[in-house]
Amino acid sequence: MVTQGQVITCKAAVAWEPNKPLVIEDVQVAPPQAGEVRVKVLYTALCHTDAYTWSGKDPEGLFPCVLGHEAAGIVESVGEGVTEVQAGDHVIPCYQAECRECKFCKSGKTNLCGKVRAATGVGVMMNDRKSRFSINGKPIYHFMGTSTFSQYTVVHDVSVAKIDPVAPLEKVCLLGCGVPTGLGAVWNTAKVEPGSIVAVFGLGTVGLAVAEGAKAAGASRIIGIDIDSKKFDRAKNFGVTEFINPKEHEKPIQQVIVDLTDGGVDYSFECIGNVSVMRAALECCHKGWGTSVIVGVAASGQEISTRPFQLVTGRVWKGTAFGGFKSRSQVPTLVDKYLKKEIKVDEYITHNMTLTDINKAFDLMHDGECLRVVLDMFV
Amino acid sequence: MVTQGQVITCKAAVAWEPNKPLVIEDVQVAPPQAGEVRVKVLYTALCHTDAYTWSGKDPEGLFPCVLGHEAAGIVESVGEGVTEVQAGDHVIPCYQAECRECKFCKSGKTNLCGKVRAATGVGVMMNDRKSRFSINGKPIYHFMGTSTFSQYTVVHDVSVAKIDPVAPLEKVCLLGCGVPTGLGAVWNTAKVEPGSIVAVFGLGTVGLAVAEGAKAAGASRIIGIDIDSKKFDRAKNFGVTEFINPKEHEKPIQQVIVDLTDGGVDYSFECIGNVSVMRAALECCHKGWGTSVIVGVAASGQEISTRPFQLVTGRVWKGTAFGGFKSRSQVPTLVDKYLKKEIKVDEYITHNMTLTDINKAFDLMHDGECLRVVLDMFV
Repeated sequence: MVTQGQVITCKAAVAWEPNKPLVIEDVQVAPPQAGEVRVKVLYTALCHTDAYTWSGKDPEGLFPCVLGHEAAGIVESVGEGVTEVQAGDHVIPCYQAECRECKFCKSGKTNLCGKVRAATGVGVMMNDRKSRFSINGKPIYHFMGTSTFSQYTVVHDVSVAKIDPVAPLEKVCLLGCGVPTGLGAVWNTAKVEPGSIVAVFGLGTVGLAVAEGAKAAGASRIIGIDIDSKKFDRAKNFGVTEFINPKEHEKPIQQVIVDLTDGGVDYSFECIGNVSVMRAALECCHKGWGTSVIVGVAASGQEISTRPFQLVTGRVWKGTAFGGFKSRSQVPTLVDKYLKKEIKVDEYITHNMTLTDINKAFDLMHDGECLRVVLDMFV
Repeated sequence: MVTQGQVITCKAAVAWEPNKPLVIEDVQVAPPQAGEVRVKVLYTALCHTDAYTWSGKDPEGLFPCVLGHEAAGIVESVGEGVTEVQAGDHVIPCYQAECRECKFCKSGKTNLCGKVRAATGVGVMMNDRKSRFSINGKPIYHFMGTSTFSQYTVVHDVSVAKIDPVAPLEKVCLLGCGVPTGLGAVWNTAKVEPGSIVAVFGLGTVGLAVAEGAKAAGASRIIGIDIDSKKFDRAKNFGVTEFINPKEHEKPIQQVIVDLTDGGVDYSFECIGNVSVMRAALECCHKGWGTSVIVGVAASGQEISTRPFQLVTGRVWKGTAFGGFKSRSQVPTLVDKYLKKEIKVDEYITHNMTLTDINKAFDLMHDGECLRVVLDMFV
């Protein structure tokens, strides 16, 4: 079947309105225009950012839309001028683009490419400021420039990483968001050194990836903090050496950690998205040098606060997006690391389901046992 | 006159209670005990931290006390075990100690020595947890481990920097606080690179030292922000290239700066101690890499806040104390730089007065024309 240049009708999970179940629909996916790539999405995982926008709490959320941003697939066709990938290439769509030309990409200081954000931020493609998704002529918005809850999606060429075709797509789809975010927070943003004491707040996928990254960086102690004590056993496999449940302490958690660590940790990571925890994560850092990295995404409008004395006495407050990894350049490297068994991926997948189960999959995410649910898009 | 080992009676400005004029008293200064140094203070400057504690707003302020922490003098005598300075040495008392032995000093990551803080924080000396100042037997508290508003003071040996005796003490007394704080915020804490765009909030002594440091570091634009437009002319001499008065703009100052700089500055410095300005200083930084350094000291209990998205999108929030300089090691180097005309000092001195004028000197500090008042202690 020749599909190149044709509209493809396929299955997609459409979010028609906030907080209502997604509906599996037949969606029309237009061919890629100049600078665009149409990808057959074989596997997608679910991430809390999808759930956040779906909930309606994201003021930038647009409906109806096709959510999803952690996936892997194969290029179906490319638009005019696309040279770096071609039909048949195995790829991971990247919500964080990398154009290598903009002020951000050229700075050498950040992975936050600005090239296509003006379009992806409002659910459309750069070329004509329109969506490639529609149902009977009614446009459906894109999401994060990826929209991987569709069997076919169209992404900008700066938003797709070509990977080794040997890699199992049902596994490496996770390298589109959560796992790199955690690893990179440690390696790129904090730059944890051997012997460091590290605190990780929240032991979901991102928090466990932080622990894994910290272990690889040679941290001497990795303290996991979570209000669900059941998570500790699993966390040990990712490198967590000590566990604290704030519910079991009367004192503020930052004080508990300072007491346990002779003055505080060298590095802390907030992997929840809770602004009170962000404060605790900063304040449990050691005076003089402790660095806290915000990894979790807080709800819109919420604010972090602390006494400025915390910073004047040497603590540093940072954040990270996609772990500071340059997507097109570095996602393929992470895939290679997985193939060489240098980083875990399989261990984060707790459930395998199909696209039709997507609403059940979202329900599962609220369960402490669940890390990542991977959906097979074509079963 | 042999004074070594004797109590010295001399003039000092005593703060008997918060917010009441200082009183010039005859004070008894006990000889230095083990690990202590008695210094004849020849010149002292006034700093806003003195005024803050004097005002009574500092919850750690203790009364009666001898304030003052930016000074220069000559060692009168030393206590047992003191080897690094001796009578006759020219010195600058350092409110930030440097013991070279504690966890902080050995870390290589901070200048915040912890050795004597437990004593200096409560106005006494480590050796016997008592004050060396008294009036007719009534103890008078020390302040910041320096108490330079006295003709003689006793400091810990880890809190005194030996300097080149060629240096004019009536000038280099400024290297005890404000000027190093500004220079070091740029050189040590932010590490500003050539070509950077810098914003400086508050054009007092510390802000001007930031500008001077940024110019020396090769910044391409140095934007001075102050609500007193009269300060701009003088600021130019310290390296400020552009001036913004927030009162002349309707938009929030961070937005004005972002618009002026194609997305924000590379580095910003808050040199006022105002938590709202600290927020503006962070938020005027460029997405992806902008770093904001809190230099000013906010009033007790006040908090800074921002949206975590500011950090997640790559801004970094830091602070600095004494500009990150290791006091005993680096103050002498700063004196040498002054002697080689590599840094300004004279230009920050707007007034010369005597100890007896100290209350007038404090009044002067509220005047926009005033940077530093230097008091001659023996006229």
